[in-house]
Amino acid sequence: MKTNLALALLIGGSCWAQAAPDATPAPSNVGSAEYPQIAPDLRVTFRLKAPNATKVQLRGGAGLVKDSIDLARGDGGIWTVTTPPAVPGFHYYWFVVDGLNVNDPSSYTYFGWGRETSGLDVPEQGVDFYEAKDVPHGEVRARWYRSTLTGKWRRANVYTPPDYDKHSGTRYPVLYLQHGAGENERGWVEQGRANFILDNLLAAGKARPMIVVVDTGYAARPAGAAPPTSSTRTPGPTSAFEEVMLSELIPMIDSTYRTLADREHRAMAGLSMGSMQTLQITLKHLDQFAWIGAMSGPPRQGFDVKTAYDGVFGDASAFNQKVKLLWLGAGTAEEQIHKNTLAMHEALAKAGIKSAFFSSQGTDHEWQTWCRSLHDLAPRLFRN
Amino acid sequence: MKTNLALALLIGGSCWAQAAPDATPAPSNVGSAEYPQIAPDLRVTFRLKAPNATKVQLRGGAGLVKDSIDLARGDGGIWTVTTPPAVPGFHYYWFVVDGLNVNDPSSYTYFGWGRETSGLDVPEQGVDFYEAKDVPHGEVRARWYRSTLTGKWRRANVYTPPDYDKHSGTRYPVLYLQHGAGENERGWVEQGRANFILDNLLAAGKARPMIVVVDTGYAARPAGAAPPTSSTRTPGPTSAFEEVMLSELIPMIDSTYRTLADREHRAMAGLSMGSMQTLQITLKHLDQFAWIGAMSGPPRQGFDVKTAYDGVFGDASAFNQKVKLLWLGAGTAEEQIHKNTLAMHEALAKAGIKSAFFSSQGTDHEWQTWCRSLHDLAPRLFRN
Repeated sequence: MKTNLALALLIGGSCWAQAAPDATPAPSNVGSAEYPQIAPDLRVTFRLKAPNATKVQLRGGAGLVKDSIDLARGDGGIWTVTTPPAVPGFHYYWFVVDGLNVNDPSSYTYFGWGRETSGLDVPEQGVDFYEAKDVPHGEVRARWYRSTLTGKWRRANVYTPPDYDKHSGTRYPVLYLQHGAGENERGWVEQGRANFILDNLLAAGKARPMIVVVDTGYAARPAGAAPPTSSTRTPGPTSAFEEVMLSELIPMIDSTYRTLADREHRAMAGLSMGSMQTLQITLKHLDQFAWIGAMSGPPRQGFDVKTAYDGVFGDASAFNQKVKLLWLGAGTAEEQIHKNTLAMHEALAKAGIKSAFFSSQGTDHEWQTWCRSLHDLAPRLFRN
Repeated sequence: MKTNLALALLIGGSCWAQAAPDATPAPSNVGSAEYPQIAPDLRVTFRLKAPNATKVQLRGGAGLVKDSIDLARGDGGIWTVTTPPAVPGFHYYWFVVDGLNVNDPSSYTYFGWGRETSGLDVPEQGVDFYEAKDVPHGEVRARWYRSTLTGKWRRANVYTPPDYDKHSGTRYPVLYLQHGAGENERGWVEQGRANFILDNLLAAGKARPMIVVVDTGYAARPAGAAPPTSSTRTPGPTSAFEEVMLSELIPMIDSTYRTLADREHRAMAGLSMGSMQTLQITLKHLDQFAWIGAMSGPPRQGFDVKTAYDGVFGDASAFNQKVKLLWLGAGTAEEQIHKNTLAMHEALAKAGIKSAFFSSQGTDHEWQTWCRSLHDLAPRLFRN
């Protein structure tokens, strides 16, 4: 640790082409890949063999790399760089080799940025609420269903709590949990580890057993019969999601799993784009949802409590009676989003609307914010 | 089609940088990505934007590209190539850009070759036994379990047949199904579509409802206390799989799911490396397995029926009575493997040992061979 600190002082926060001597392979590496390596102070060393490249850069999530960092060429065409200390948690990343995006063969890929993207897990010291631990584990079930509206097969990932199959007389509340733009139904499992977060909360008696449904927030009706020149030819990629969710997904879940199929036992939450979808859908359909979680996605426009969401906040007492939880949260490092979310919370409070507000300290518009958000939100759900 | 044929004649089986006018985006493309495109005659056009590259090649599965094919540079640094007609089915592929392996941002990645690798699905005309169809669907359940032997968490993908949860009094036989070298527990679901194959067979009444367990065939005990110079320091990556399977996986499955937990209701099959693991494990433990499937993975050494597998074939009548099915198969385009598998089948027959032999016409050491193999094997399992 001493050597490492000395190195850190020496390089003064800039980047460095040598891994610290006490760095170890990231837990997210493929098989026995030696790089990326993470030092105790969370500097991360990346390595790529690209003998013919003239320029190699690292790009990725804001808590790992701001904009981009150049790698340095070493013997045998091995390019390396050591970043400044990273924010803990999951980060997307990729190399840019002479202008071309290239994933790291040493890491698994995750669906983000609209494509398969390398991912790195930077452990947070003393924090294991999202790790696989020696507690009873639920399952994540891939459930395929035909969507008539979109004309496509969809895959929902359904978390069932431990011993769901053994408690065959029990029915469960359901949380619908949405990813962000450029991601899909894999996000909350692979990047967000929703299943391990729930397993650990349940083992500690901190949350009520629930089913969690993770579907993709993208859904569009097929291109219509309008002529090819029409601007309406291609519907927006999320344009049919509300309809798919209400008329296809929820009925399928309620008829397939042992759910408590009423609004008091149905929650929806989401991050970023999924947060905006959550607010739009739940506030429009309060007959369907009583629990609402908006992570890092406040309303796009300036929030006016009187007019927002068709005036749903107009009658504070009726709203407070109907909605069991309106949860808002963001990371402090995603400054504008944090500010807007807090402003919404404060405007609601001023209007007499109850909402919960959660700040994730030091984290940006990345999955560590959302892991912590779920960890804060889930224990509050389905409590009366 | 006429234009296309003319083009094909013109280029005489070599490659071409323009997609046929009637080519359409591959069904495996990400979102609305336009390339790769597949023509009716199964020529595939690939495209990559790499303005600074000096050489771009395509590599991948044998049914798509033999060795490698050069892409041609066009306007704006867009590189393209059209392959000769591909063998139908799933193919791994990647680009080599100035010597560096690069995945295609337009395709999803699959775990093969020991890394995340782009994948392409080339539909086979009139063949839909592995497609998602409008039939009852089972689930694929991600089941995490702690392996004491390896000191690691493992994830098994468990297919449960349609309505498993509704038939709570029913117990099911189990097929353990293994991937090949460089792959993992995702292979039989993502590349091999085992769940859809089973769904379709079950809907047609052609197979007995069963649980299918797909785990990774890699398992090693942690490095021991031997000194770093010892050659035994790092155990082989599959060295503990047999032990993990028999003492951890099977007991976990039998205690978690409603299985018929005896040898008459337990099958094991695998492809390539998984085939060799299947033969090694089942023939050594006939008290545990009565159904055996070896896909594209005959014994490595010359097969001698008298001495092979510790002489298990020595008493033909005892073997035939004990083993309900010994299934062998390979693709005709993986010529040496097909030849060796057939030789094993014939040597067994000569010794009075019953085995089934399946040839997949025209397919190589790729997933189309194994999809067809499972489609042939599954209906024969657990029949008396």
